[in-house]
Amino acid sequence: MPDQQNNDSSFKLTPLSEIGEFGLIDRLTSGIRLYHKETIKGVGDDAAVIDVGDKVILLSTDLLVEGVHFDMMYTPLRHLGYKSAVVNISDIAAMNGIPKQLTVSVAASSRFSLEALEELYEGIKLACDRYKVDLVGGDTSSGNKGLMISVTILGEAKKDEVIYRSGARPNDLLCVSGDLGSAYMGLLLLEREKAVFKANPNMQPELDGFDYQVGRQLKPEARTDIRETLEKLGVKPTSMIDISDGLASESLHLCKQSGTGCRIFEEKIPINPQTRELAMEFKLIPSVAALSGGEDYELLFTIDQKDYEKIKDAEDITIIGHMTDASEGKAMVTPDNKQVELTAQGWDSMKIEKTGSF
Amino acid sequence: MPDQQNNDSSFKLTPLSEIGEFGLIDRLTSGIRLYHKETIKGVGDDAAVIDVGDKVILLSTDLLVEGVHFDMMYTPLRHLGYKSAVVNISDIAAMNGIPKQLTVSVAASSRFSLEALEELYEGIKLACDRYKVDLVGGDTSSGNKGLMISVTILGEAKKDEVIYRSGARPNDLLCVSGDLGSAYMGLLLLEREKAVFKANPNMQPELDGFDYQVGRQLKPEARTDIRETLEKLGVKPTSMIDISDGLASESLHLCKQSGTGCRIFEEKIPINPQTRELAMEFKLIPSVAALSGGEDYELLFTIDQKDYEKIKDAEDITIIGHMTDASEGKAMVTPDNKQVELTAQGWDSMKIEKTGSF
Repeated sequence: MPDQQNNDSSFKLTPLSEIGEFGLIDRLTSGIRLYHKETIKGVGDDAAVIDVGDKVILLSTDLLVEGVHFDMMYTPLRHLGYKSAVVNISDIAAMNGIPKQLTVSVAASSRFSLEALEELYEGIKLACDRYKVDLVGGDTSSGNKGLMISVTILGEAKKDEVIYRSGARPNDLLCVSGDLGSAYMGLLLLEREKAVFKANPNMQPELDGFDYQVGRQLKPEARTDIRETLEKLGVKPTSMIDISDGLASESLHLCKQSGTGCRIFEEKIPINPQTRELAMEFKLIPSVAALSGGEDYELLFTIDQKDYEKIKDAEDITIIGHMTDASEGKAMVTPDNKQVELTAQGWDSMKIEKTGSF
Repeated sequence: MPDQQNNDSSFKLTPLSEIGEFGLIDRLTSGIRLYHKETIKGVGDDAAVIDVGDKVILLSTDLLVEGVHFDMMYTPLRHLGYKSAVVNISDIAAMNGIPKQLTVSVAASSRFSLEALEELYEGIKLACDRYKVDLVGGDTSSGNKGLMISVTILGEAKKDEVIYRSGARPNDLLCVSGDLGSAYMGLLLLEREKAVFKANPNMQPELDGFDYQVGRQLKPEARTDIRETLEKLGVKPTSMIDISDGLASESLHLCKQSGTGCRIFEEKIPINPQTRELAMEFKLIPSVAALSGGEDYELLFTIDQKDYEKIKDAEDITIIGHMTDASEGKAMVTPDNKQVELTAQGWDSMKIEKTGSF
């Protein structure tokens, strides 16, 4: 009666750390058969798409694990609850849908009290109120260690309104909402103050003046407003994705699924001035925080060149580059006109070990 | 910068073990506001019900946590994957719906290999093939300890076909599919052999001859066939629930949400003869295994008395009692005509610490 996950010990087992995020997802989701014609899109975008007649239902899920996605040392439970809802709402926004219902499952070890879980749920309910989403179900369980939150969201869209990752074409303009890199600098700040506190528990954390960066990390918002902005401008993106893993990784997703290459101009990447200074203080190139930091939950999308005039003066939307033929590769162009190949910074990289949504 | 879940230390915190499963769910889900008229039913049944025009979408989610819901010592990963899909499919069956799509999120510690997770997914895919369900998304994450699986399922039904927990009326007949208690006896067998193995690793487990009980525990099936059986018989249940927590607990759910009492006749409870013997061997009253054991994933439902003739000879369906006025309470009637009050055996009780779906 040996431990069952080791019963195939006749051949060499592959540690999860060896295969990487996207390799793992490819392996686990290979050979999936779809039985229902209503399943328009399964694995492979920000949400699955299900035909229900005159509209479609969007379905997405995200997992937040203590020690992987958040650190209880500096994450208030209310913010954590809010964020766990928002990251899912963001997935629906990335499909150009309207978030509608969500379920929340929580596994908590005995170190968490009723009041702690109530705090967590207060945050979830706050996000539900803010984004008009109905909390309709879930599951609770004791857990053997730490805290784990699994949220699943349903959204809705008209069939011809859904925007996939796969619709970009060469020469489409690459656009991004808001600014990038601040959530990551917020994380670095919190990690630095945690280290200071651990060395001397009487030290007060020095986070004053960095509300924006810390807020972007602990209590992000989903860009559900971009759908309306684009509708008003009369622009329908050709492809879209939300930035959870960093600009580089998400750009590569759009390129891969659309069969294109891309050029991103470094000086066009929108970065908050204080975030830029903070990056320099941490001896980081600011664009690296934007490219690899992630968790900004802004939207990255492509539009047809003919829509340039409509979008060029839009508030809070920046054109950062364009798509190319696949043969031209994926690169960032520096101000001195050098091309740097874009690489996905998955969970092997500069970040805390991370997740892979599929 | 203290650990945030303890930052309300000015008043006494309530350990989760003190409040119990249903108390916790009530507290966490209180004050939920619903914004969308499409949300026909939120928290409180086997699945949420969402209006999408000429039909409804059913949405349910279940969490399986290592050390709480399963023990890796005797749970093959393939079976675990299968079961994690089946328990969700069963929730859709309990609403009289057709299961359609599911998402799977997995958090696994580094002791799990790629091959182990592939085994788990093989089991999930097997259930998807068997029940014609599309695996359409999910999330993967490293975890700090053990294995955690969160599955969310979507089902479909015509609006007037959905069966809620709340529709039972006094004098309705209480029916159950299949037989009860075997999954629990399978668990006790596996636990016994685990103890034997721990005492002497050279001992072989003695599970021969108990394939049925062990199978019911490790690889349960969902009763999606009951929907068709009832349709053929021309019977529409007035209320329905699946038996995940035991006959007593599920009967109490039907009573509470329908505003009724009930009488269950002990000698009518369908129990496999070998399971009965096994219970005696374990010095357990067989009906207790059925009432409190759970995990049989049979369907418990009520029908109008006028449908008695239609159902009385149906294969694999047993009438075990009837509903009463709420004032008459909820009780089991023993063969010598004594009444024993039904009590929910939540996670405080005879079972391993358990979960609460809502």
